[in-house]
Amino acid sequence: MASAAADASAGEESLRRALSEKQVEVDAQGSVVRELKASIASKDLISAAVEALSALKLEKASIEKRLQEIVSASNGGHQNKEAFRQAVVNTLERRLFYIPSFKIYRGVAGLYDYGPPGCAVKSNVLAFWRQHFVLEENMLEVDCPCVTPEVVLKASGHVDKFTDLMVKDEKTGTCYRADHLLKDFCKEKLEKDLTISTEKAAELKHVLAMLDDFSAEELGEKIKLYGITAPDTKNPLSDPYPFNLMFQTSIGPSGLSPGYMRPETAQGIFVNFKDLYYYNGNKLPFAAAQIGQAFRNEISPRQGLLRVREFTLAEIEHFVDPEEKSHPKFGEVAKLEFLMFPRELQVSGESAKRMVLGEAVSKGIVNNETLGYFIGRVYLFLTSLGIDKERLRFRQHLANEMAHYAADCWDAEIECSYGWIECVGIADRSAYDLRAHTEKSGVALVAHEKFAEPKEVEKLVIAPVKKELGLAFKGNQKMVVEALEAMDEKAAMEMKAELETKGEVEFQVCTLGKNVTIKKNMVAISKEKKKEHQRVFTPSVIEPSFGIGRIIYCLFEHSFYTRPSKAGDEQLNVFRFPPLVAPIKCTVFPLVQNEKYEEVAKRIAKSLTAAGISYKIDITGTSIGKRYARTDELGVPLAITVDETDSITIRERDSKKQVRVNVDEVASVVKKVMDGQSTWADVLWEYPSHHSASADE
Amino acid sequence: MASAAADASAGEESLRRALSEKQVEVDAQGSVVRELKASIASKDLISAAVEALSALKLEKASIEKRLQEIVSASNGGHQNKEAFRQAVVNTLERRLFYIPSFKIYRGVAGLYDYGPPGCAVKSNVLAFWRQHFVLEENMLEVDCPCVTPEVVLKASGHVDKFTDLMVKDEKTGTCYRADHLLKDFCKEKLEKDLTISTEKAAELKHVLAMLDDFSAEELGEKIKLYGITAPDTKNPLSDPYPFNLMFQTSIGPSGLSPGYMRPETAQGIFVNFKDLYYYNGNKLPFAAAQIGQAFRNEISPRQGLLRVREFTLAEIEHFVDPEEKSHPKFGEVAKLEFLMFPRELQVSGESAKRMVLGEAVSKGIVNNETLGYFIGRVYLFLTSLGIDKERLRFRQHLANEMAHYAADCWDAEIECSYGWIECVGIADRSAYDLRAHTEKSGVALVAHEKFAEPKEVEKLVIAPVKKELGLAFKGNQKMVVEALEAMDEKAAMEMKAELETKGEVEFQVCTLGKNVTIKKNMVAISKEKKKEHQRVFTPSVIEPSFGIGRIIYCLFEHSFYTRPSKAGDEQLNVFRFPPLVAPIKCTVFPLVQNEKYEEVAKRIAKSLTAAGISYKIDITGTSIGKRYARTDELGVPLAITVDETDSITIRERDSKKQVRVNVDEVASVVKKVMDGQSTWADVLWEYPSHHSASADE
Repeated sequence: MASAAADASAGEESLRRALSEKQVEVDAQGSVVRELKASIASKDLISAAVEALSALKLEKASIEKRLQEIVSASNGGHQNKEAFRQAVVNTLERRLFYIPSFKIYRGVAGLYDYGPPGCAVKSNVLAFWRQHFVLEENMLEVDCPCVTPEVVLKASGHVDKFTDLMVKDEKTGTCYRADHLLKDFCKEKLEKDLTISTEKAAELKHVLAMLDDFSAEELGEKIKLYGITAPDTKNPLSDPYPFNLMFQTSIGPSGLSPGYMRPETAQGIFVNFKDLYYYNGNKLPFAAAQIGQAFRNEISPRQGLLRVREFTLAEIEHFVDPEEKSHPKFGEVAKLEFLMFPRELQVSGESAKRMVLGEAVSKGIVNNETLGYFIGRVYLFLTSLGIDKERLRFRQHLANEMAHYAADCWDAEIECSYGWIECVGIADRSAYDLRAHTEKSGVALVAHEKFAEPKEVEKLVIAPVKKELGLAFKGNQKMVVEALEAMDEKAAMEMKAELETKGEVEFQVCTLGKNVTIKKNMVAISKEKKKEHQRVFTPSVIEPSFGIGRIIYCLFEHSFYTRPSKAGDEQLNVFRFPPLVAPIKCTVFPLVQNEKYEEVAKRIAKSLTAAGISYKIDITGTSIGKRYARTDELGVPLAITVDETDSITIRERDSKKQVRVNVDEVASVVKKVMDGQSTWADVLWEYPSHHSASADE
Repeated sequence: MASAAADASAGEESLRRALSEKQVEVDAQGSVVRELKASIASKDLISAAVEALSALKLEKASIEKRLQEIVSASNGGHQNKEAFRQAVVNTLERRLFYIPSFKIYRGVAGLYDYGPPGCAVKSNVLAFWRQHFVLEENMLEVDCPCVTPEVVLKASGHVDKFTDLMVKDEKTGTCYRADHLLKDFCKEKLEKDLTISTEKAAELKHVLAMLDDFSAEELGEKIKLYGITAPDTKNPLSDPYPFNLMFQTSIGPSGLSPGYMRPETAQGIFVNFKDLYYYNGNKLPFAAAQIGQAFRNEISPRQGLLRVREFTLAEIEHFVDPEEKSHPKFGEVAKLEFLMFPRELQVSGESAKRMVLGEAVSKGIVNNETLGYFIGRVYLFLTSLGIDKERLRFRQHLANEMAHYAADCWDAEIECSYGWIECVGIADRSAYDLRAHTEKSGVALVAHEKFAEPKEVEKLVIAPVKKELGLAFKGNQKMVVEALEAMDEKAAMEMKAELETKGEVEFQVCTLGKNVTIKKNMVAISKEKKKEHQRVFTPSVIEPSFGIGRIIYCLFEHSFYTRPSKAGDEQLNVFRFPPLVAPIKCTVFPLVQNEKYEEVAKRIAKSLTAAGISYKIDITGTSIGKRYARTDELGVPLAITVDETDSITIRERDSKKQVRVNVDEVASVVKKVMDGQSTWADVLWEYPSHHSASADE
């Protein structure tokens, strides 16, 4: 460890040297450019110089970044994850990024409020989501209610299957998630009991690996076997039984219409497929999107903001022809390279590795281009928000995790102090959802492909002769007819051949649980040629589904760092949010309490409002250093200090560098940086830098 | 009627003439300006000319507006409201502005989805709300869950009082709102029964006026008296009984924690008062805001989008010192003049009248400046969205409508085909909510005013002598002590005087329901001088609460108009949404299906996305006129028709005028108009106009 740290520090040293050399170069080049600019009117020459400089700046920025990574990695190695999390969470709660809901009434587990800065971060993330997905892809955004009638969630399978297995403390009635208790038991045993045998350890590890696959009976057996009791009271536990995680309610006054608070927003889109398809000119592919609240009545929520009972989902349902899943814009993301964790690597015990997205698709690791396109877009979305790309991976679902109907499924997982957390699921759900609602509602949720000219197709026709079947099977006739009609082409053609040669055939009817004898006169099987004018099919759906709260929590962790105060007596907290995400874009501080400065501060505030920039004004007499520290903790990128009446200083949060800017230009400078039209490096180059006693705080 | 129409048409004619004369002037002036611009380099001269021209343009616009009003008034006079509504609603449903939720399952009354254009309008309205209120006033926005534990809504009064009176069909069990049945009965009788006596008519009118004040018993009596039966079956009805309108659910798996879906977002703010006050530096006034879903389990929803079971609220809670309700920015809205409908005018049977807001406040018609400020801001908000200011009024609550604790309350009401609809409530709720939660939670939700120097105050001290009281009243002691301590200053000083003169006094203890005799040795009453360093008080709250769905529905009605197609054979639908609200900002049409044009269309589409402008591209071969009509119906302000490869035409929705613009400039022209930096009139002036066969469609 010590030697690794020494290596890192040697590496650091040489990088710092390289950096300072580069800085000398940059400065030299900068002065050349300034001279050029002053003496030469020709725009072409200046812009060439600017280009050269900006290339240098890019190099410098990437060296700086690498340096920071080394520093944070060596920090990270020593730092205790729990302590880090506690520092983040303390800052978040103290600065009201979030608040346990209904705190004055002692709160409710799994419910949180976003306070002012958290709410601003959330609305920035959602606005960017709309820009990045809905606007960019011309998606059809809809907004459906949370209250959902039972029939819809019966069709989707949630009423029957959206459950967790629960056990009850047999004396107090307190409820626990059965798998959590078993998991805790195994982990604790493995970590703390040094006396267990190798076989026992292997057994417990196997249990942990299989946890998600256990049935209620299997879970119950293990709990009995290990003598697991209620954590708080040590009382015996009930057998595990399923608890439906939907919040139930009743629609209308009669009490006869059960309803649920939706567990996801997707169903609202599926049930509208027909209208949306029409709205899109009856053309595929198209995507619909929805942002909204979803609900999950967790048995016993833990993991703070990561497992909550109410949360904001942003979901996309991209409808495609199952036979045509290429994507015209795939080329735009094909060259992206990032951590991927395909099924094979997981199974063979390897770790995630960097892959080029285009190759992952062409090698068939990712099922199709459209799925791949969304994986790439999700990567761009998350890293633009400030998620560290080294702690982001795309993990493919294992066979046992994936629903039987799904064609392929990848989770964007972000590493935080709780481990790797699923934040976005990107699944090819095939035609499952549309078929389920077609069946339950009787409304065909299908697409049509008109042929340029009619096609001749061969169709299998199975015609049971009901009279003969009725004579032979009486009350069972219906089941036999259904079984005959349900045969696939292969089975039907085999039966046809056998009937023709032998005159009869043994046929298994599952619904009767036995074989029956089918005779030649009981069914006519043939292939007929037909002209078809169109193909009618159920579209596949590719669904990227974003847990907004989880993304935001991981973003908080990835953005948080501490640095010593000027006096070195305390650690100050900073969130390095990019402008896109920052809850407040800048602060306005009169340096000292004086009417003239406050007047200027108000003028600036007004111009910021007019430019649509959120700001916070602080006219308290607190020291400027303290005021900077306060807003660094909110992740405010720029601070405007009014220290004269005609010009002011702007200070950047992470570098703590300052420039002087005229009062009239302030709003436009801030706006440019916030909109991404300029970088802070551009501003440093364009405006004179400023040094003051308070500047280095 | 005929003569009024003739008048209007004569008025129209002369206005049209004036208008065309003005147009000649404008054109002449325009060419002068263009000449000036071409020949004169001096910027000053040009800008003077531009000013003159823009003054003319304003004049022209106001004439046009007046003309439109006359036309729409004469239309309106003849048009049946029901037919108008049907035309609007048909268009809205056909173009998926909204969709009855879960339609394929035959829907659920009172639940609606916003389809793509509706959803875009909604998110534009909310974005503007954030800009106009939250950003402009530096409000603290929060985001709390919908699931709310019972204790919170018990404290707020919703568990006990958020009810409607319901009657049941005694045979089928179908439920109805009792007041609705009585209202329908009275209205129908008054409208259709020509035989009723004057006294009977007066009686029914009185019932209608008193409807909101009736108790369950009174409603029940009237229903019996008039022999009202179930509307569908004519079966007898049950007595009216209260039905709580909250959706109930259960939090967690135990079934022991009842919860509700919040009926408003305000409570989430109140319970966080302490933290928010701290976040604001322990200073008043400040406002918190929240946008979110709210729920109301209506007994039998009617009135389409106006009475729904789930809706989006945007609420502001502005906390002020009850002794200081002036507002520093009131001057900015004081000169606004609009329709107000104070209590006095309503009671005396007059109608709403135009008032200057500043005068309404100074005359005491509006209770205070802060309330007045928000009334003004709400007026600006609604009219910016496109609400017709002639069909918007602020109606003061009558004494019987207002909660007992409220200081004053005004509703922004918008007139639509259903009548005058409450869309925003602006109430001074005094200290009620914070007090209720203080009491229930035991956490003091108060503010502090530090005195510059300590103040000497005289405080009443009531010291019951518990030993004596215990001897005298035994088990009742506690009630007597509480009653003594609850005396106000006047009562206490009277008791003191009487005890000193007579030695004993009769004292009413409400909780015991009787008088008791208090003797001199049982209580010590005195006034003590104390030094106080601060004043502790419960802030008042002023609450503007916006029903976003209702505002949007009224906006749909106010924006809708029809005009004949070019051939005159059909009426085409148009929504005249301002750019701020329009669901899609522009459309892109290649004039004919051809590869070159489609290439240009795609290039333009890309530049629009980069500029953050939403658009719809239509490459079908449909006639350009039909394509215009389709997007007019979605309220798209601008249409870009690709009819050449280097320049295109832009057509404005309402005037149907067209200009030619270079392909490279298209996105920036559209963006300027959408952001409000330019008007369409500016564009008309700056770019050559375009006439084509298809232009006037």
